[in-house]
Amino acid sequence: MIKHIPGGVCAATGFTAGGIHCGIRKNRSKRDLALIVSETPASAAAVYTKNLVKGAPLTVTKQHIADGYAKAVICNSGNANTCNADGIQVAEEMSRLVGEALGIAPTDVVVASTGVIGQPLDVTPIKEGIPALIESLSTDGSDTAAEGIMTTDTVKKEVAVEFTLDGKTCRLGGIAKGSGMIHPHMATMLVFITTDAAIAPQMLQKALSSDILDSFNMVSVDGDTSTNDMVTVLANGLAGNAEITAEGGDYTVFCQALAAVTTELCRMIAADGEGATKRLECLVTGAADTATAKTVAKSVICSSLLKAAMFGADANWGRVLCAIGYSGGAVDVNRVDVSFRSAKGTIPVCVSGAGIPFSEEIAKEILLEKEIDILIELNSGDATATAWGCDLTYDYVKINGDYRT
Amino acid sequence: MIKHIPGGVCAATGFTAGGIHCGIRKNRSKRDLALIVSETPASAAAVYTKNLVKGAPLTVTKQHIADGYAKAVICNSGNANTCNADGIQVAEEMSRLVGEALGIAPTDVVVASTGVIGQPLDVTPIKEGIPALIESLSTDGSDTAAEGIMTTDTVKKEVAVEFTLDGKTCRLGGIAKGSGMIHPHMATMLVFITTDAAIAPQMLQKALSSDILDSFNMVSVDGDTSTNDMVTVLANGLAGNAEITAEGGDYTVFCQALAAVTTELCRMIAADGEGATKRLECLVTGAADTATAKTVAKSVICSSLLKAAMFGADANWGRVLCAIGYSGGAVDVNRVDVSFRSAKGTIPVCVSGAGIPFSEEIAKEILLEKEIDILIELNSGDATATAWGCDLTYDYVKINGDYRT
Repeated sequence: MIKHIPGGVCAATGFTAGGIHCGIRKNRSKRDLALIVSETPASAAAVYTKNLVKGAPLTVTKQHIADGYAKAVICNSGNANTCNADGIQVAEEMSRLVGEALGIAPTDVVVASTGVIGQPLDVTPIKEGIPALIESLSTDGSDTAAEGIMTTDTVKKEVAVEFTLDGKTCRLGGIAKGSGMIHPHMATMLVFITTDAAIAPQMLQKALSSDILDSFNMVSVDGDTSTNDMVTVLANGLAGNAEITAEGGDYTVFCQALAAVTTELCRMIAADGEGATKRLECLVTGAADTATAKTVAKSVICSSLLKAAMFGADANWGRVLCAIGYSGGAVDVNRVDVSFRSAKGTIPVCVSGAGIPFSEEIAKEILLEKEIDILIELNSGDATATAWGCDLTYDYVKINGDYRT
Repeated sequence: MIKHIPGGVCAATGFTAGGIHCGIRKNRSKRDLALIVSETPASAAAVYTKNLVKGAPLTVTKQHIADGYAKAVICNSGNANTCNADGIQVAEEMSRLVGEALGIAPTDVVVASTGVIGQPLDVTPIKEGIPALIESLSTDGSDTAAEGIMTTDTVKKEVAVEFTLDGKTCRLGGIAKGSGMIHPHMATMLVFITTDAAIAPQMLQKALSSDILDSFNMVSVDGDTSTNDMVTVLANGLAGNAEITAEGGDYTVFCQALAAVTTELCRMIAADGEGATKRLECLVTGAADTATAKTVAKSVICSSLLKAAMFGADANWGRVLCAIGYSGGAVDVNRVDVSFRSAKGTIPVCVSGAGIPFSEEIAKEILLEKEIDILIELNSGDATATAWGCDLTYDYVKINGDYRT
């Protein structure tokens, strides 16, 4: 059984976290620096953006966790430290400062940055903020850490679960930031996950690499794949279960717990998409294979036209069919059924690729809700997939029309 | 020499056109039916959307021009005749009505529809409108035909050129509609081109199929590939040149004339993108090969984040780098230079993949113009490509939030 619990990245035994305003951002009420620390060495795994333009912190993190272990995560918001000539140097310096303050090796530090691309990141405010950052660490500091990594996010994103491995109670929790430039490809946004489960680094990496294919890689806010996407997991083993070193029952339970957290974070990221008023979830069933189901779900959730229609609560299912048609998936469009669903009910709008009569009034009532499911039955097999996204609104344009200034 | 002339689809000898309001649309001041007629049989070529969901008129047109010839084009706006159970029947009936009225075979009619998807198209107003439609035909009727095919377009799109083949003066002109659901793949929007040049059907098809790879396939307004995209060319040979039946000097000149018209129509479609306030043109140079140049240009022009930044006249070049990075093109990002250009001047903002100091004031002045070029030098070869698009604005969301009602 997987039970939701509070605590975010501090839910697991042996983790503390904190966040402060150090001065990277001008707005003094906005935290811009976060730290997560494990009291013992933790197995570490990470996945990174597939964008060829990669933030310097990703390169440094990759080197630091090459040995499979880490003890701390530092992350600033307000500046992505990407496309800067001195990027690597700054990311290394951030690791060195944290290592020195915590008395650990700089190579045991995961480093991340998020914010505007292409403006040099001045390390001075971070350096001067380190004492206050260390001071902020506590077992209920997940909240402030989650705030410290936010950019255009309007809500902080934290989830944690409790589960049992080898008779021991384990906990796994995460925080995420992500609102715009969201169209992950093999990695995503910034997500930091901690657990006290004992799991060997290579199994942790396997679990994470597999999980993201169905979680973060199925989210899209705007079709733009960020340069700084990264998901990391630290597992310190303090729950006391026998270390997971191979596939089997314990590994399966661990993967389920991981999926419970990542899926919920996906929903939160989609709902908080830049300017979004609605969370969209596209559920594809009856596909010939999983690849087709995913391709279709992702194509529909990415359609600007459908996203704008959802903003207007307009049951324009022709745009769903259109997006299925250009998805690249091998679909028999004459078998496709489409329905819209929300807390108000479900309304079928298309059967066998053609429109059916439906009440526009009822459709409107369903689509005025904040959480809309787009149900697509391909009637061609048993494979399924889910993708998450949001509507396209005036505010998306407003937020992104003048982000830098 | 290729000279721009007025006249649109009636610039070429032997073509008449016209457009009327027949009642498919409720707004009586908006024409919704257009006709183009060649007085003699014309070589016919067409390219169609790659969307698996295809409008019924495309299927019917494909059959009708399978023999390489046609004499007329009928097109309605206000309804796409797509995803309807009786779609083929309605498209055939439209051809039959035109054939009967003109005294030509129904199979010599190209038929097209554009508008909302998935609502049955009632053929009655078309049937009742045929006499007035025939009446509207004239050698200066290109304007009204161009109006008759508009949907959310705000301006009509017509271009024509004059050139010489085999010592004879030839003319080639076209009209286009396209504003939303614009992300062509091997075909596009609705474009009807006429010419009095003599060219064999297979050479006409070759010229068109090759042309669209650099013209319409390089336009994107919103990333949504329409179900009804189609480009057709009718060539009636009345200019009297020796028929082009193989590659060579005349074929090359013909392709240049065709490109002059299609490229200008691309610019017009991009500038009139739904809600657009600016036309964007992305010019990629120094690519290792043409495929890479095109991939990069298309990726940049499609980025929602960059499009929103351009709306805000924000020189956010990091978003250009980001879109290059996720384009899928094999690019050395450390060699990339980026500049923004408009009628006000050119400003370099990124050299060798990193930002350089620049005046935000001058950048703003350049980006406040209506026509912006994004110049990308990859410094890796000689290949180039151009893609066209537009900014992402509040009005795009408004137009598409409630299109059907």
